Amino acid sequence: MRVRNKPWAPKLIAAHPELITEDPTQLKGQWQSRFEKAQPLQIEVGSGKGQFIINMAKRHPEINYVAIEIQTSVIAVILKKLVEEPLPNLQLAHADGQAVTAFFEPHEVDRLYLNFSDPWPKARHEKRRLTYKSFLQSYQEVLKPNGQIEFKTDNRGLFEFSLTSMNNYGLHFEQVWLDLHAVVTPEENVETEYEQKFSAKGPIYKIIATFPADKE
Amino acid sequence: MRVRNKPWAPKLIAAHPELITEDPTQLKGQWQSRFEKAQPLQIEVGSGKGQFIINMAKRHPEINYVAIEIQTSVIAVILKKLVEEPLPNLQLAHADGQAVTAFFEPHEVDRLYLNFSDPWPKARHEKRRLTYKSFLQSYQEVLKPNGQIEFKTDNRGLFEFSLTSMNNYGLHFEQVWLDLHAVVTPEENVETEYEQKFSAKGPIYKIIATFPADKE
Repeated sequence: MRVRNKPWAPKLIAAHPELITEDPTQLKGQWQSRFEKAQPLQIEVGSGKGQFIINMAKRHPEINYVAIEIQTSVIAVILKKLVEEPLPNLQLAHADGQAVTAFFEPHEVDRLYLNFSDPWPKARHEKRRLTYKSFLQSYQEVLKPNGQIEFKTDNRGLFEFSLTSMNNYGLHFEQVWLDLHAVVTPEENVETEYEQKFSAKGPIYKIIATFPADKE
Repeated sequence: MRVRNKPWAPKLIAAHPELITEDPTQLKGQWQSRFEKAQPLQIEVGSGKGQFIINMAKRHPEINYVAIEIQTSVIAVILKKLVEEPLPNLQLAHADGQAVTAFFEPHEVDRLYLNFSDPWPKARHEKRRLTYKSFLQSYQEVLKPNGQIEFKTDNRGLFEFSLTSMNNYGLHFEQVWLDLHAVVTPEENVETEYEQKFSAKGPIYKIIATFPADKE
């Protein structure tokens, strides 16, 4: 996501260490201490401006969420919303979501969301796609046994790649949608801002898949 | 496929026992005797009017093909084409393609094609879909170890179901296309008559997948 530089962002981030961490490695294994209550932990890798994760946190007070986003001017937008309307079950991590194993202990996470990740369309950039096998492996490591991943995208090439990559990795497909908005209502589907903007241009693809328990 | 009744069909079928069999159980394990040369055997379950399998047979003289189709007036159309333009590597079976294990010995088949199968959209008809696990099991039985299935459809619901069913069965996805005609040329993709007619209305989906060797 490309956004305009926000000069106020670093200062806002520095002012709210209770809501956002710049070094999530320090919280590895201790994320529950950042929330009001210890309850299931779900994370989003690449949260953008946070519409999805904020709405999830509002809908599910019984779950703790961590939004990971590397871009300063982007995560600052989530933080601003959070300062204006506090949510006790949402924490922010200003960091590279690719490094989840550095941020979470094995089995610390209950569910992982990927929404509209960078498609990296060139074949030589295949390994950068967030559903490439090396990333799947790190997700599996931080997830509980039989942990689930939910992945949405509007990018056909990325979804074709992801179906194959996730199948080859041994993930068990729970459900696949090839035109999500044709069958679910806004009540059933928490949208990202990107999704709202681009769903008119073509189908939104989604998969929910479960990691095998016996692989590490 | 619904077609007009063809009064000439039964007579034409009866006149060409060298090209078409009405009882493929009799050829179980002996299909190669029906061809000029013994060479890899590929089958299509539900061949319709045969455009796909005829063009495959023309393109690949090094492969033997069996087209299975239950409707008399439909398979008679393939037979008519075959009488007019003989192909030494294509045989027809006028039978219910669902019963492949009755027609082929274990490991007799090298590859299996499903094209635009009946979607059976109602949930209570799930078991009739040709990618339901019981059918996958019978395909695996007649296919060589690590045999492949190629499946095309324009039906979104059927493809969503099939991705999940094939994944859950343990098939290894080789490649998935969510809009086949956007990326392949007619030279690369042998079309069915249905595909030619309906591809303008929406995407054609395709998957190539390999059966696991260690399941029976």
